[in-house]
Amino acid sequence: MPVSLPDIRAAATRIAPHVHHTPVMTCASLDAWLGARAFMKCEHLQRTGSFKYRGATNAVRALGDEEAARGVAAHSSGNHAAALACAARVRGIPAYVVVPDGAPAVKRAAVARYGARITTCENTLAAREAALAGVVAATGAVEIHPYDDDRVVAGAGTAALELCEAVPGLDAVVAPVGGGGLLSGTSVAVHGLHPEVRVIGAEPARADDAARSLAAGVLQPPGPPATVADGLRTGLSERTFAILREHVERIVTVTEDEIAEAMRTVWERTKQVIEPSAAVAFAAVRRAGLGGARVGIVVSGGNVDLGAAASLLAG
Amino acid sequence: MPVSLPDIRAAATRIAPHVHHTPVMTCASLDAWLGARAFMKCEHLQRTGSFKYRGATNAVRALGDEEAARGVAAHSSGNHAAALACAARVRGIPAYVVVPDGAPAVKRAAVARYGARITTCENTLAAREAALAGVVAATGAVEIHPYDDDRVVAGAGTAALELCEAVPGLDAVVAPVGGGGLLSGTSVAVHGLHPEVRVIGAEPARADDAARSLAAGVLQPPGPPATVADGLRTGLSERTFAILREHVERIVTVTEDEIAEAMRTVWERTKQVIEPSAAVAFAAVRRAGLGGARVGIVVSGGNVDLGAAASLLAG
Repeated sequence: MPVSLPDIRAAATRIAPHVHHTPVMTCASLDAWLGARAFMKCEHLQRTGSFKYRGATNAVRALGDEEAARGVAAHSSGNHAAALACAARVRGIPAYVVVPDGAPAVKRAAVARYGARITTCENTLAAREAALAGVVAATGAVEIHPYDDDRVVAGAGTAALELCEAVPGLDAVVAPVGGGGLLSGTSVAVHGLHPEVRVIGAEPARADDAARSLAAGVLQPPGPPATVADGLRTGLSERTFAILREHVERIVTVTEDEIAEAMRTVWERTKQVIEPSAAVAFAAVRRAGLGGARVGIVVSGGNVDLGAAASLLAG
Repeated sequence: MPVSLPDIRAAATRIAPHVHHTPVMTCASLDAWLGARAFMKCEHLQRTGSFKYRGATNAVRALGDEEAARGVAAHSSGNHAAALACAARVRGIPAYVVVPDGAPAVKRAAVARYGARITTCENTLAAREAALAGVVAATGAVEIHPYDDDRVVAGAGTAALELCEAVPGLDAVVAPVGGGGLLSGTSVAVHGLHPEVRVIGAEPARADDAARSLAAGVLQPPGPPATVADGLRTGLSERTFAILREHVERIVTVTEDEIAEAMRTVWERTKQVIEPSAAVAFAAVRRAGLGGARVGIVVSGGNVDLGAAASLLAG
């Protein structure tokens, strides 16, 4: 059974004591740039700076006491790792994180700050999986996948649940897509509540496996990661692909220049620090030409290495 | 009669239909860095991106119809100009703004976007005043001074009024000081409501005329402007100095490095884009060593030239 609206409601109840009920922001001058009325669901203001804390908390809280005591483990480019580390610390259990070389320094530092035990490895999927298998074998920890996990998808969907409750009459909801956990949870929540609302994915053209997979009707492998949107370099799983096929109207792909321009514009007009992966959704809304529609945007995260971002900001 | 709490309450009523009732934010990881529990009054999310919109709106709305029809005029390094331009546009009257060479491009662009008629001049006080006198003589417009004006001071104080209503039990309130309009209005509001709350000014060491004036007991002239905090390069007036003498416990001065570090830290931890002048208040709280106190911080603005900010962010 794929994740359903009741699963997302159950997740919302389970995580409510631990997560921020993030605000929804609007900004008239941003709307003028977007060509749409945007309602920003501010997950960059979530604990650990991204929506990932919802799924990680749902997964960590769903474990039985004995299982939980052995700890949790993951490999991650950053936000999931920080979220899992923090969720584990809040529950008082260990977290083991495999971080690939090349992950943004600020994300790695966050993982360490939350007390996770870090193993580093080469930045290939094979190396990550091997390192994680070693950690799990040595510790008995439970692997929590960043998106190929029903508990994580259901947790991610709680942001859209809150968005739909806060903002009536949305025409569309847009979320970025990397592994597809956020977009899956978002689409199930939105269509469970309002089947008529359009759900749109936003993806870098340089990491367009979701767009290609939906066009082909068969899961396509991701290409080599080549986008500034470091949270979106992973590919869909069969689990997330199946949900997207059912619920997502279209995937809008955007260029690297569009991502950088969207990030600068959001920073300048809304005064919100969003990360490149989050900027992809704004770039997609502008490109999609939604003609003044009321659009919910799930702002996925705000963890940026400010030093590295300087070149993007300089334009 | 100096500005009093009833003046600030009257301003709050007058401007309520036009200004944002900005949120108060908190951030646990920022608190750890500050050594205090901070309650951020988010005037960077105010219309035009700074608290200046409150004073400008109060001044513009206080004019009689005949006077207003001739328009309003000011010279300003930026935020007051944008605020006055927007407030005038909302009332449907002309705004004339003298902008000195060297003002941040993003602030100048904002003034133009709000439809003000811009005159440029050399970046000296004498040149600004001469240019403004010329504009006023030619148009009959009413000069609205950025801070040496009771209506502007009263409007600025409405932010602290909202802050005190939203957050009970504050130990101190901190605001940056340049010309002293914000700190004057803040201190009158805070002490009018809660005489026991400490009011602290935050000033760049490189533009420390307020600290020197309070130490000497006599208004001291500002030195040459030499701080990255472009909103704080002006000096106190007799009007604002008199209020600060009565209500401000101390001025904490901070270095340029401390301002840059505070700006980076606030951006990274709170995901809020604040301008260097606003960062001065955070730097002062950290330096003051307030020992876990509950501190209200008036976040004065978020108008940053992102290209120019890149070097500050790189650290």
